[in-house]
Amino acid sequence: MNQPSLLLTQGDPAGIGPELALKAWMLRKEQALPPFAVLSDPAFLERLAQNQGWDVPIRTVETAQIPGTFSKSLPVIPLSGPVSAQAGQPAAGAAASVVESIETAVRLVQDGAASALVTNPIAKHVLYEAGFRHPGHTEFLAALASKGGGETYHPVMMLWSEQLAVVPVTVHIPLADVPAALTTELIVRTGRIVARELRKRFGIAKPRLALAGLNPHAGENGAMGTEEANVIVPAIDILRAEGIEMAGPLPADTMFHARARSRYDAALAMYHDQALIPIKTIAFDEAVNVTLGLPFVRTSPDHGTAFDIAGKGIARPDSLIAAIKLAARLGAS
Amino acid sequence: MNQPSLLLTQGDPAGIGPELALKAWMLRKEQALPPFAVLSDPAFLERLAQNQGWDVPIRTVETAQIPGTFSKSLPVIPLSGPVSAQAGQPAAGAAASVVESIETAVRLVQDGAASALVTNPIAKHVLYEAGFRHPGHTEFLAALASKGGGETYHPVMMLWSEQLAVVPVTVHIPLADVPAALTTELIVRTGRIVARELRKRFGIAKPRLALAGLNPHAGENGAMGTEEANVIVPAIDILRAEGIEMAGPLPADTMFHARARSRYDAALAMYHDQALIPIKTIAFDEAVNVTLGLPFVRTSPDHGTAFDIAGKGIARPDSLIAAIKLAARLGAS
Repeated sequence: MNQPSLLLTQGDPAGIGPELALKAWMLRKEQALPPFAVLSDPAFLERLAQNQGWDVPIRTVETAQIPGTFSKSLPVIPLSGPVSAQAGQPAAGAAASVVESIETAVRLVQDGAASALVTNPIAKHVLYEAGFRHPGHTEFLAALASKGGGETYHPVMMLWSEQLAVVPVTVHIPLADVPAALTTELIVRTGRIVARELRKRFGIAKPRLALAGLNPHAGENGAMGTEEANVIVPAIDILRAEGIEMAGPLPADTMFHARARSRYDAALAMYHDQALIPIKTIAFDEAVNVTLGLPFVRTSPDHGTAFDIAGKGIARPDSLIAAIKLAARLGAS
Repeated sequence: MNQPSLLLTQGDPAGIGPELALKAWMLRKEQALPPFAVLSDPAFLERLAQNQGWDVPIRTVETAQIPGTFSKSLPVIPLSGPVSAQAGQPAAGAAASVVESIETAVRLVQDGAASALVTNPIAKHVLYEAGFRHPGHTEFLAALASKGGGETYHPVMMLWSEQLAVVPVTVHIPLADVPAALTTELIVRTGRIVARELRKRFGIAKPRLALAGLNPHAGENGAMGTEEANVIVPAIDILRAEGIEMAGPLPADTMFHARARSRYDAALAMYHDQALIPIKTIAFDEAVNVTLGLPFVRTSPDHGTAFDIAGKGIARPDSLIAAIKLAARLGAS
């Protein structure tokens, strides 16, 4: 039997997601991409390809047909109705298709009919208008994963590139709220998930984690902040006691250059920009978002819907291609 | 008449500063270094060279003799007494020589006998034991610059490399204190000094500044923090009204990759790690510390005394050499 294939969700049809899916398929040989299918309306994707003048034959399939179809046509798993969109003009009318694409993809990967998900960008504010009630894309996936099973998942965002993998322990909150949000418990829970998935998904037998300090010079022994001693070091002690190789708290400014990066498999940063500045500085086009802590593999390109350039055919597929490759690698384990 | 030469302060004699000065001189031809003199005890430097087996003839000089001496011998401007130190063993007994070296260097550059200063690293805690009362190296230089003149200087730290120049608006304070310390006035004062010195010292006729936001995604229109709207945008408006080209507030994670960097001459970051993570990630060995806002040019290598490797001859002179080159470039204007 074939290895199950990857599924790409549609994302916001007015954004760059669908056109990047077409571009990625056109580059399938050059980039040696694994077979994938898009969950969308085949007619919508056909129109999109025609508008760009791209030669992308679309074929409606079921998951088992993806591998046999992929070399000659872009396999599409159809949604329950038609999708229409004006590039760059997001509309609440498309929200149902965005949500259905994600729900169907999760069901298929949970059933074992697909090996991993690659999600295209969505626009939360458009979904909110249509009644969507989850704080974000990742939380929605975690809620879908919990459905029926009863288990609660704590999704953890990793930004991954060949050169560097980073995990922000706190994520989308104001900087002023970071010190209070940063708890030993949160760092420990995050560190456990990262270590487990580096072993299970990335095949790293003894993962090495590096933890950043919160303050300049990692607090310089308390001269510039106490969170290192009070919050971070206790978390490191707990994780080390569980057998995880940990370095830190390290001064954040000196832990991301090439020699420093070679000493660990993933860096845990204390807040959003501490994690995202280094990876986007050195791997802006190729960084991939991986969600750890879910019962399936999910990657996504590290960019948004980019409504300002949607439909122009100029969006770069580098990050989506990197997300597809990483999903295949992680989903095969 | 000759262009005045550069002066290198001794720094802590038990640290790596003095040996890096010798290394830099040995690399003077290979690196096409401009003439410089070290302010220290000639006999101390001679012993240091002998201990390493390095062929560095030392010659005691006055400033006017530096250019004529430099190709054959390392010019040294002697301090008032002998200096002795055990590598890696800082001692309060050496504090007087550390301070005298800095004081003399400032006097000579203020008198026009030297074009710029390059300061080697000092250890504040050692100086404190000996009665030093300034918060740091840079504040001491600002105090010396004000002496007699009566003007108060606001030194601004820039980290500079060929690829990126960054200025942290707040510097050595705990992260939790950053939001309160960040004021419109501080950003405006810093922006003015940076723009003025980019024109005057760096020869950039119309400097382009980029300002980072404080929060993730620069606050995402208030969804993740209000400092962008309340503090940073008003500062940008004031600086723009003064004719300074400003971009921002920009999401900090997407402003430091190569394409983004090409759009500005210097980036103003809101706190220490936001500035230092990107430059140390891409230019760890070559980044130079430049103090803006003083009445003279001062650069320094972007590392400390490194007592742990002092005397072993293994410290890398890359940053000191970059600091010497930049001081020459800025001091010539």
